Amino acid sequence: MTTPCEKAAILVEALPYIRDFYGRTVVVKYGGSAMADCRLRKAVMEDIVLMRYVGMHPIVVHGGGPNITRMLKRLGISTRFVDGLRITDEETMEVVEMVLVGKINKDIVAGLNDMGGLAVGLSGKDGMLIRADHMSGKEHLGFVGQVREINTGVLETITEKGYIPVISPIGAGNHGQSFNINADHVASALATALKADKLVLLTDVPGILAVPDDVSSRISRLRASEVESYIDCGIISGGMIPKVECCVEALQGGVNRTHILDGRIPHSILLEIFTDEGIGSMVVNG
Amino acid sequence: MTTPCEKAAILVEALPYIRDFYGRTVVVKYGGSAMADCRLRKAVMEDIVLMRYVGMHPIVVHGGGPNITRMLKRLGISTRFVDGLRITDEETMEVVEMVLVGKINKDIVAGLNDMGGLAVGLSGKDGMLIRADHMSGKEHLGFVGQVREINTGVLETITEKGYIPVISPIGAGNHGQSFNINADHVASALATALKADKLVLLTDVPGILAVPDDVSSRISRLRASEVESYIDCGIISGGMIPKVECCVEALQGGVNRTHILDGRIPHSILLEIFTDEGIGSMVVNG
Amino acid sequence: MTTPCEKAAILVEALPYIRDFYGRTVVVKYGGSAMADCRLRKAVMEDIVLMRYVGMHPIVVHGGGPNITRMLKRLGISTRFVDGLRITDEETMEVVEMVLVGKINKDIVAGLNDMGGLAVGLSGKDGMLIRADHMSGKEHLGFVGQVREINTGVLETITEKGYIPVISPIGAGNHGQSFNINADHVASALATALKADKLVLLTDVPGILAVPDDVSSRISRLRASEVESYIDCGIISGGMIPKVECCVEALQGGVNRTHILDGRIPHSILLEIFTDEGIGSMVVNG
Amino acid sequence: MTTPCEKAAILVEALPYIRDFYGRTVVVKYGGSAMADCRLRKAVMEDIVLMRYVGMHPIVVHGGGPNITRMLKRLGISTRFVDGLRITDEETMEVVEMVLVGKINKDIVAGLNDMGGLAVGLSGKDGMLIRADHMSGKEHLGFVGQVREINTGVLETITEKGYIPVISPIGAGNHGQSFNINADHVASALATALKADKLVLLTDVPGILAVPDDVSSRISRLRASEVESYIDCGIISGGMIPKVECCVEALQGGVNRTHILDGRIPHSILLEIFTDEGIGSMVVNG
Amino acid sequence: MTTPCEKAAILVEALPYIRDFYGRTVVVKYGGSAMADCRLRKAVMEDIVLMRYVGMHPIVVHGGGPNITRMLKRLGISTRFVDGLRITDEETMEVVEMVLVGKINKDIVAGLNDMGGLAVGLSGKDGMLIRADHMSGKEHLGFVGQVREINTGVLETITEKGYIPVISPIGAGNHGQSFNINADHVASALATALKADKLVLLTDVPGILAVPDDVSSRISRLRASEVESYIDCGIISGGMIPKVECCVEALQGGVNRTHILDGRIPHSILLEIFTDEGIGSMVVNG
Amino acid sequence: MTTPCEKAAILVEALPYIRDFYGRTVVVKYGGSAMADCRLRKAVMEDIVLMRYVGMHPIVVHGGGPNITRMLKRLGISTRFVDGLRITDEETMEVVEMVLVGKINKDIVAGLNDMGGLAVGLSGKDGMLIRADHMSGKEHLGFVGQVREINTGVLETITEKGYIPVISPIGAGNHGQSFNINADHVASALATALKADKLVLLTDVPGILAVPDDVSSRISRLRASEVESYIDCGIISGGMIPKVECCVEALQGGVNRTHILDGRIPHSILLEIFTDEGIGSMVVNG
Repeated sequence: MTTPCEKAAILVEALPYIRDFYGRTVVVKYGGSAMADCRLRKAVMEDIVLMRYVGMHPIVVHGGGPNITRMLKRLGISTRFVDGLRITDEETMEVVEMVLVGKINKDIVAGLNDMGGLAVGLSGKDGMLIRADHMSGKEHLGFVGQVREINTGVLETITEKGYIPVISPIGAGNHGQSFNINADHVASALATALKADKLVLLTDVPGILAVPDDVSSRISRLRASEVESYIDCGIISGGMIPKVECCVEALQGGVNRTHILDGRIPHSILLEIFTDEGIGSMVVNG
Repeated sequence: MTTPCEKAAILVEALPYIRDFYGRTVVVKYGGSAMADCRLRKAVMEDIVLMRYVGMHPIVVHGGGPNITRMLKRLGISTRFVDGLRITDEETMEVVEMVLVGKINKDIVAGLNDMGGLAVGLSGKDGMLIRADHMSGKEHLGFVGQVREINTGVLETITEKGYIPVISPIGAGNHGQSFNINADHVASALATALKADKLVLLTDVPGILAVPDDVSSRISRLRASEVESYIDCGIISGGMIPKVECCVEALQGGVNRTHILDGRIPHSILLEIFTDEGIGSMVVNG
Repeated sequence: MTTPCEKAAILVEALPYIRDFYGRTVVVKYGGSAMADCRLRKAVMEDIVLMRYVGMHPIVVHGGGPNITRMLKRLGISTRFVDGLRITDEETMEVVEMVLVGKINKDIVAGLNDMGGLAVGLSGKDGMLIRADHMSGKEHLGFVGQVREINTGVLETITEKGYIPVISPIGAGNHGQSFNINADHVASALATALKADKLVLLTDVPGILAVPDDVSSRISRLRASEVESYIDCGIISGGMIPKVECCVEALQGGVNRTHILDGRIPHSILLEIFTDEGIGSMVVNG
Repeated sequence: MTTPCEKAAILVEALPYIRDFYGRTVVVKYGGSAMADCRLRKAVMEDIVLMRYVGMHPIVVHGGGPNITRMLKRLGISTRFVDGLRITDEETMEVVEMVLVGKINKDIVAGLNDMGGLAVGLSGKDGMLIRADHMSGKEHLGFVGQVREINTGVLETITEKGYIPVISPIGAGNHGQSFNINADHVASALATALKADKLVLLTDVPGILAVPDDVSSRISRLRASEVESYIDCGIISGGMIPKVECCVEALQGGVNRTHILDGRIPHSILLEIFTDEGIGSMVVNG
Repeated sequence: MTTPCEKAAILVEALPYIRDFYGRTVVVKYGGSAMADCRLRKAVMEDIVLMRYVGMHPIVVHGGGPNITRMLKRLGISTRFVDGLRITDEETMEVVEMVLVGKINKDIVAGLNDMGGLAVGLSGKDGMLIRADHMSGKEHLGFVGQVREINTGVLETITEKGYIPVISPIGAGNHGQSFNINADHVASALATALKADKLVLLTDVPGILAVPDDVSSRISRLRASEVESYIDCGIISGGMIPKVECCVEALQGGVNRTHILDGRIPHSILLEIFTDEGIGSMVVNG
Repeated sequence: MTTPCEKAAILVEALPYIRDFYGRTVVVKYGGSAMADCRLRKAVMEDIVLMRYVGMHPIVVHGGGPNITRMLKRLGISTRFVDGLRITDEETMEVVEMVLVGKINKDIVAGLNDMGGLAVGLSGKDGMLIRADHMSGKEHLGFVGQVREINTGVLETITEKGYIPVISPIGAGNHGQSFNINADHVASALATALKADKLVLLTDVPGILAVPDDVSSRISRLRASEVESYIDCGIISGGMIPKVECCVEALQGGVNRTHILDGRIPHSILLEIFTDEGIGSMVVNG
C-alpha cells in the first residue's frame, strides 16, 4: 500500500514533465491489443484525457484490423493481401470505411467522453482533413491510398475549443472517393502537419530489441541516422520497419520525438510522458 | 432558352430572400427519394452549399432507411417492427450506427465537399451533441431512443468557422451506449436548441393534401392550432402525423417556420427559400 | 414564362461563381447611363447589394459628369476643357466637390440603403482616404489632381462591419485643399491598394470592338501586353484609351481581372459575375 | 509672458479634468461665428482634436446657415420662412443637402485632419444613421424633418477606431428622401442615443443672461426644472428657447451635463472642459 | 520502491480531481511552519505550481510573523499586543510593510519561479487591490486595518496570462496610508471577491480536534451551522476561532469549500486536492 | 494672474506634443531630490499620471540611495564602497531589497494612485522581469549585479490594461538570488527592451554644463558620437559619465531620444515633453 507521502512524491515527480509538455501537441496512433483488451483500452482513455487536462493537445489516430476482417467475413467478402496490403475493391472499401468511422471511431469517442474528456470523431473526409490518392505503384490494389495533403483547419477549430479529435485513417479522393490508408502513416503525416512535439505509436511489441525475444535487450533510444544499419543487420525487421520509417518521416517533418511503445503495458503513454521510466524505443533526430 | 435578361431577373428575384435569410440557421432533415436518387441528391447538395454561400447556416440531419435494412439482411439479422419502430437489440444497434455514421453520413459529407462546401459529419456522440435515453414506454424495443438533451457546443464551434454540419441521428446514452433516434425528431430538437429560423423536412409526398391524391388540393399553409382538427378529419394521417408533430414541437420551441417539402422535386429547398413559388406545406405558429 | 425548374437551374448556375468570389473585393466604377437612367440605376443598386449578400466586398467609386456641368451652368460659372480635362479653379472645385459629395454620392448611398444594403459615403478627405496632388504637368489646369497615396484604414473599418462604401473621387491635398480626380483612376488606385480581385468599369459602350460600330466584333478578352498594339492600330481609341490604361495599371498593381462593361445593359455586373455570359471586354495579365 | 513654471501649473490644472473625462463621449453642435470666423474655426478644430488625444470621444454635429442661403440666392431659388423654419421644397432640399454634406462637412473634416485628428464625415443617410420624418404638424413646410430613430452602428464603428465623426443634420426618409433637420436637435438626439456625457451647443451669445445685454448677469448654471419659469419671465427668450429645450431633452435622455457656450470666445470648449473657468450656461438635471 | 504500475495508478487516481478542479480558483493562505521550514516550503511551491499547470488558478496570500518581530527587535522598536493584535504606529507599520512586501513576498515569488511557475507579487496598494480602513473599534491600535473593498482588476489581468499572484496583506488607505491586515481575512475576502472555489488556510495544527491533542479525533468535515456550538463547547478555541470564522465568512461570500490544513505535512495542499486522503478539517455550507 | 485666454494658449501649445507622443513609451528613471522633496515628488507624480492620460505609456524605474543607507545604519550593518559601488553581502542585499521593494516602490505606487493613475509595483523577480548576474569583473563586490535579460511579458500585460508600472532595480539570479543593479542601467535596459521612444533620467544637476557651475552654459543637445570627446575634455565628468553612457546604450538599443533632466525643477518632465522649453540635456543618435 502506498502512503500519502509516497503518493505526493509520485505526483510531484510528474511536475517537471507536465511543465515541459504544457501546450504541446502529441499524436497517438492507437491500435493493437490496447484497443482490443478492455482494461488496456480504459487505461489509454485515462491517459489521453489526463494529457488533455494537464494542458497538452492529444490527437488520436486509430487503426482497424480484426473488426474489419470480421465484418468482411460476415458479409462473405473475400480478402486477399499482397505484400501485407489488403486488395481493396469498392465493396471492400465501403465496409472498411463503415467499420472504421461508424464503429471503431465512435467507440473511442464514447470511451473518452466517459472519462470526462469531450471527443469529436473525424474521418479524412470531414473538412477535407486528409486528401488522398492511390498509393503510388499500387494502383492495382484498388483503394489503398496514401496521404496527398493534410488540411488542418477543422482539427485546429476543434482542438482550440478543448475537444479531443479522434481520426479514422480514411482519405478523401476526388469526387468523394474514399481511400484506406495505413494508420501509422496518417499519424505521421498529421504530426508533421500540426508541428506536433511527439508522435507515439502503440504496438504489440516491447519496442526494438537488440536480441530477438530478449526484452532486456530493448534499445531505448536510437537516432534516425542509425535506422538503416539496424535494418541491414536485421535488428529492425518485419512489421517494425514501416513503423520506424513513419517515425523517421515525422522527425524529418519537424516532429521533436517519436516513440514506439508497448501498448500491452497499461498506461504506457502516461508512464512515457509523466515519469522517469523508459518505456519502449524512442527514435530521435541525429 | 433563357435570355441573359431573364437570367438576371431571376437572380434579382432571389435578392429579397437572400437578404431576409442572411445569418439565419436552417435545419434540413434529409431523407427519402432525395437521398436515394442520384440527380435529386446532387440538387440537394447544391441547394445546401448555396445556402451556405449566401450567408445562411444550414444544418443537415439525415435519416437512413433502406441502407440499414439492406445491411441487416446481408448480415442475416432479422428485423421486426412494432408500431413502425424497429426493435433494436445490441447487434442491430451496432449495424444501424455503422451504416448511418460510417456510410450515409460520409457520403453526404463527400457530396457537399464536392459542391464546394466544407462539411463535417457528426454523430450524437461527438462532443456529446445528443444525449439520449430509452424512448419512454418503449424500453422493450431495445435501443430506440429519444433526445434528452442537446449540447450545441461542437455545432457552434464548427458552424462559426463556416463548416456545414451533417448529423447522424445517433444518441449518446450513459457509458457510451448508442441509441437510434428518429431523424425528424433529432432535426426538430436541434432546430429548437439552435433557435433556428426554419425547419425543413424533406418527404416523398407533395405536402398535405386536402383531397387524397389530388396534388392540386395541397394546403400550402396551416397553423399549429389547426393541426389537431386536420388529424381528426383524416386530412393529416399515417406517416404525415409524426412529421407534422415534429413541426409543431419545433414551433413551440421557438422555431419561426417549418416546412414539409416534396423532396422528389429537384431543388425544392432552393425554390422554397429563394423564390416566390409555393412548395409543399408550411406549418406556422398561431 | 419561366418554370420553377428553370428558375432553379439559373440559381444553381450562379453557385460556382458565388463560391469563387466569396470574400473577394470588387471595385466598381459607376457612371454614365447606368447612373442617369432610372431603371438601369436600380439594376446596378440590386447587383451591388446582391454582391454584398453573397459574401463579396463591393466598393463603389462614382463619377459625376452632367450633374456638375448643369450646376456650373446654373451658377454662371463658365467651363473650359483642355485635352479633355476641365480647367478647375477654386470656385469650380467647390461646385464639383459639392455636387459629387453632397448630391451624387448621397443619392447612391440612399439607393443602396433602399435595396437593403447599408452604404456609407466617403470622400477622399474622410480619414484621409485619398491623398492627392496637382496632376503632374497639368498644374496650369488648377485643381485637377492625381492620386498620391491611398490610406485604406477607414475603408477597412467600414467594410469589416458589412457596410458598402461609396467613394467620391475627391482627393485631399495639403491644408485641406480639394482636388478633382478622374473616377476611373481613383477606382484603379483603390483596387490596387485593397488588393481587389476585380476592377469593373461601367461605360456607355459595348466594350472594345474590332470593327467600329459592329457589336458582334467585340473583343471579349485581351492581354495587357496586347494593349499597345491595339492602340497603335486604332482599335482602342478615344475615351477608351484611358479606361484600358486604368485596367493595365490595376493589373500591374496586383488586381486579378479588370472589366470594361456596357452599363447600358441592365444588370451587366451581375451577368458578368454570376453567369456564363460574356459581357463587355476583359483585360487580363499576360 | 508666461514662465515655464506657470505653464506647468496650467497643464497640471487640466489633469483632474482630463482624468474625469477619460473615455467619455461629448457631442458638440458646431455653428455660428465659430464656423464663419477663420481664427475661431481653427481654435474649435484644436479643441476637438485635443479632446480626442486626451482620451475623449468628441462627436461633431454642424449647422449650415449663411452658406445655404447664399447658394440658394445664387441659384435664384427664393426662400420663405414660416415660424423660423425654412419652407423646403424638393429643389431647396437638394441645395441644402449639397451645401451641408458636400461643402461645410468636408471643410470641417479637412480642418480636423489638418490639426492631426482623423475625421470622417457622415450624413444621416450613411449607414442609416438618422431616420427622419416630416416634422409633425409641419408637413406643409415640405422636407423639414424631425428625428425618428438614431442608428448608432456606423458611428460606433468609426469612433472605436479613433476617427472623429462629423455629422451633417440630414435625415433619411423612406425610399431615399432627404430631410433637413435642425442641427441642435440632431446633436441632442445623438447625445441621447450615444449615452453621451456632455452636450455642448456653440452659440453666438454669452449664455443665458438674467439682465438682457448685461454679460455680467450670466446665469452659469440652471436646473432643467427651472427652465419653464425662466421662459415665463422672459429671461430665456427668442432663439435661446429651442436651444435650452434641446438641453432639457438630452438631460431627460440620460446625458449628464449640457452647455450653451459662447462660440465667439476662442477655445471656449477647451476652457469649459479643461479649466476651472465658468464659460456660458450649464443646464443640469434637477 | 514504487513500481511503474503503482506510479501509473496514483497518477490516474488524480485524474477525477484534476478534471473537477479544471479552471477553478483556489486561494491559499500560506504561513506558519510551511513558510519557515525549508523542505516544507519547497513542497508548497511544488504544489502551487502543479495546480497552475493542471489548469487551476492558485492565488497565494502570505502572512508574516517571526520575520517582522525579528526586524522590529533589530531596529529597537518595541512591540505590544492587545487582544492578539499588534499595536501598529507609523514606524512599526513601515517595518511591517517593508518586511512583508520587500522580503517575504519576494522570497515566495522567487521560490515559485524556481519551480517553473511565473509568479508576480502584489501588495494591496498595487492597482488598489485592497482598500482598507482602521479596524472598526480598534482605532486606538494604530494602523491595524480591515478590508473595505477588493478591486480584482489587476489580479484578473495577471491570472489571465497565467502568472501566479502572491499577495501581501497590506491594505491601501486614503492618501497612500498603509494598513496591516490579518492574512487569513485577506485570503477570505479575496476568495469571496474572486468567487473562488476553494479557500485553503495552512496552519500549524492537524485541524480541528474533538479531543485536544488527540490527532485521531480530527473532525474532517463540519458545517458552518455547527461552528457556533463547537465554539461554545470549547472544541474550537483560541487561534482556531478566527480561522474558522474566516472560513464561514468565505462560505457566506459564495466560496464552495474551505479547508484548514496542517501545513507541517509536506504536500498537504496537493494531497487535499488530488487524492482521496482526508487532510485537516473542511468547513462547508449547511 | 493668467487669463483664460492665456490658459487656452498654453493648453493648445501642448497639442502637437500630445499628438506626437500618443501611444509612445517613455521610461523615466526617478531618483534624487525629486524623490526626497515632498513638493517635487508630487509634481513628478502629476507629470507621470498626465502622461498616462494623454495616451502615453510611462514606465517608472526608481533608485534608492539615502533610505537604504539609513536603514543599514539603523541595523548596524557597515557599508563600504569600492569605485562608487556598494559592497553587497547577503545581509546587505536583503536590506537593499526590502527598502527598495517594500518601502520606496510602494510609496511611489501610492503616490501615483493618489493622483488618479493606477500603478502596479514590480521587482525584477516578478514574472522574471529582470534576469541578472554578478557584474562582470566585480564578483568580489558581492551581489552587485548587471542585467542579463529583460523579459517584458508582465510589463506588457500590465501596461496594456492601463496600469503604470513602477519598477525596483532588483535583478533575479538563479535559484531566487537577488542582485542590486544600478537604476539608470535598469532604465536603459528596459527602454531598449520595450523599444521605448524616450528615456528620461532625473538628476540633481541642471544638465551637462560647458562651463562648470555656469547654468547658462548648459549644452541642450549633444550627439552620441560627441560624448567621448566631451569626456576627454572633462566637460562630462564624475557621476555624469555613467548617466551619459546609459543614454548612449539606450540610443544604440533603438531608443529615439534620451534626456538628462534637472529633477529639482518642478514638472521638469512635463515641461520637457509638452512645451517648447528646453530643459536639461538631450543626447541623440548621430
